[in-house]
Amino acid sequence: MTAESEWDTEEFDQIPNYDDVKQASQRLRGWAVETPLLESPVLNEVAGGRVFMKAESLQRTGSFKFRGAFNRISLIPERARPGGVVAYSSGNHAQGVAAAAQIVGIPAVIVMPKDAPKVKIERTRSYGAEIVLYDRVHESREEIGHDLARQRAATLVRPYDDSGIIAGQGTCAMEIATQARARGVRLDSLLVCCGGGGLTAGSVLAMERLSPDTEVLTVEPAGFDDTKRSLEAGQIRENRGGEFSICDALLAPRPGQLTFAINKDRVSGGFSVTDEEVRAALDFAFHTLKLVLEPGGAVCLAAVLSGKLNCCHRTVALTLSGGNVDPELLCAVLGDGALAAS
Amino acid sequence: MTAESEWDTEEFDQIPNYDDVKQASQRLRGWAVETPLLESPVLNEVAGGRVFMKAESLQRTGSFKFRGAFNRISLIPERARPGGVVAYSSGNHAQGVAAAAQIVGIPAVIVMPKDAPKVKIERTRSYGAEIVLYDRVHESREEIGHDLARQRAATLVRPYDDSGIIAGQGTCAMEIATQARARGVRLDSLLVCCGGGGLTAGSVLAMERLSPDTEVLTVEPAGFDDTKRSLEAGQIRENRGGEFSICDALLAPRPGQLTFAINKDRVSGGFSVTDEEVRAALDFAFHTLKLVLEPGGAVCLAAVLSGKLNCCHRTVALTLSGGNVDPELLCAVLGDGALAAS
Repeated sequence: MTAESEWDTEEFDQIPNYDDVKQASQRLRGWAVETPLLESPVLNEVAGGRVFMKAESLQRTGSFKFRGAFNRISLIPERARPGGVVAYSSGNHAQGVAAAAQIVGIPAVIVMPKDAPKVKIERTRSYGAEIVLYDRVHESREEIGHDLARQRAATLVRPYDDSGIIAGQGTCAMEIATQARARGVRLDSLLVCCGGGGLTAGSVLAMERLSPDTEVLTVEPAGFDDTKRSLEAGQIRENRGGEFSICDALLAPRPGQLTFAINKDRVSGGFSVTDEEVRAALDFAFHTLKLVLEPGGAVCLAAVLSGKLNCCHRTVALTLSGGNVDPELLCAVLGDGALAAS
Repeated sequence: MTAESEWDTEEFDQIPNYDDVKQASQRLRGWAVETPLLESPVLNEVAGGRVFMKAESLQRTGSFKFRGAFNRISLIPERARPGGVVAYSSGNHAQGVAAAAQIVGIPAVIVMPKDAPKVKIERTRSYGAEIVLYDRVHESREEIGHDLARQRAATLVRPYDDSGIIAGQGTCAMEIATQARARGVRLDSLLVCCGGGGLTAGSVLAMERLSPDTEVLTVEPAGFDDTKRSLEAGQIRENRGGEFSICDALLAPRPGQLTFAINKDRVSGGFSVTDEEVRAALDFAFHTLKLVLEPGGAVCLAAVLSGKLNCCHRTVALTLSGGNVDPELLCAVLGDGALAAS
């Protein structure tokens, strides 16, 4: 064990609890945006029930990832801070870590796939981070990340399998529960966009305390429904590989060890949605909700619009987890929609 | 005077007061969306102060116009309802009236310019309204509207010069004042997007009661700064004509009689912004705020981003008045040929 790897303390391999989420919420005050819980009369009509949308696309850095990153980086002890942080990410965790490191005042190196959306690479750089690009097919981002952390005596900020990250992401559902209660609303279900399961794990920790009667359900892209299949099997299942999805934010190969340990007994079930359903959701978000969403941020909306989750006479909350979409992609989706409609 | 024109009662030519706004707010409860007052850390940094954005793009029908339309239509007496309503509008008032008439259960005919954004024409039709298109250059929408109202014994719902409309639009600033107070924020200025002046008039009525120390300022497109020049002259001034702007929602030829009577002593000043500044604001809204705005809905944001309104160490609220933009236009602004290519 090298001296540097001391920063990867075992403390962050432990399962967090509700108090960790609550403390994260105090740390984030004044830094994270308390995003609105939106309701749309048109969506309610389409769904046949009440649908509340937690617009994390309006979060600092354009996704919920800032919550976990800021909380985790705030927990780095003073003596470890000069080495800075290293993270690997397709883009939203990258931006969250870069922005949080900038606020805390420590350097950040981010390992990103060469084919990540340009907007995510540019934005990450704009927060002052150093970017190292890698080949998603032939190289291992974990290896590159660990090597860099060792070389620079930096703290590796994992994307989801870390108690500090999970606790930070949990503040999103904490706000959902509080905002729903303020409106006198009882939530039957909470739909969460799921990649490695960090947002889901934080959400179940918050909901089991604040809204225990609300079932938590995951939504994943078709071909990347590892969490759904793992939940059904009761143990971790990998994605089969060889699949493609436009949901670049949700392409984790398998559930995290820590996140799945939390989710397996607390998540009630999972859905998967096709790219076509996601495109329809992006189009609906643009034209009807007037929100800019990225594909991975729209999977829960897609599950509702496609009717996969029956919302009839039910009250449902869902996460719109991010809005970092390349305009080229969104404009192509909107163009296809216009062509299909004409 | 025909029997039909009785519905255009003089009652709606009177200057409304704060109580009218308050009553409108009660009528709108459950029908209008209480839109969020958003804050963006990045915008605050750019502006050097605190900027709160009232996102009326997230309102039912995609603009604040639903507020005035629903309030006005609710005030139509039972005996006049079978004839329905007629309105002329470039698009946002059209959608507001069509949606409100659909809820109230009466027919609506909307007179719209042939060159209105397609999305506005389609959406208006989707609320069940009958559309009559006219030529903006050679025909008078007022004449067509009045003729139709007479023929059908319908109530003409004017876009801004009507006390019921003004009171309805005032509910937007009522919410701004209430939401700001809930956050413990004292607003130095409120920036309002200004066409005929209905939103401005409603806003000053609400603010002079709820937040009397807040100055109200208008923002208009360059070449269509009739309200700014009228305020400076102390009397109504027309636009010179022959100008063009992408802000289709804000092209009224002159301030309304009623709206200017309210605004002239209560509005502290006005700004105008160029199409180039509006394009930059649309781009910022897409990439940084993750909001879909239409050009006319982004003029206040443009005034802040361009530095025309100095926000340094100040606390400012602004209206993002609408989001009904054709994707073709927005994608062109985003500097992208993907839509045309698809």
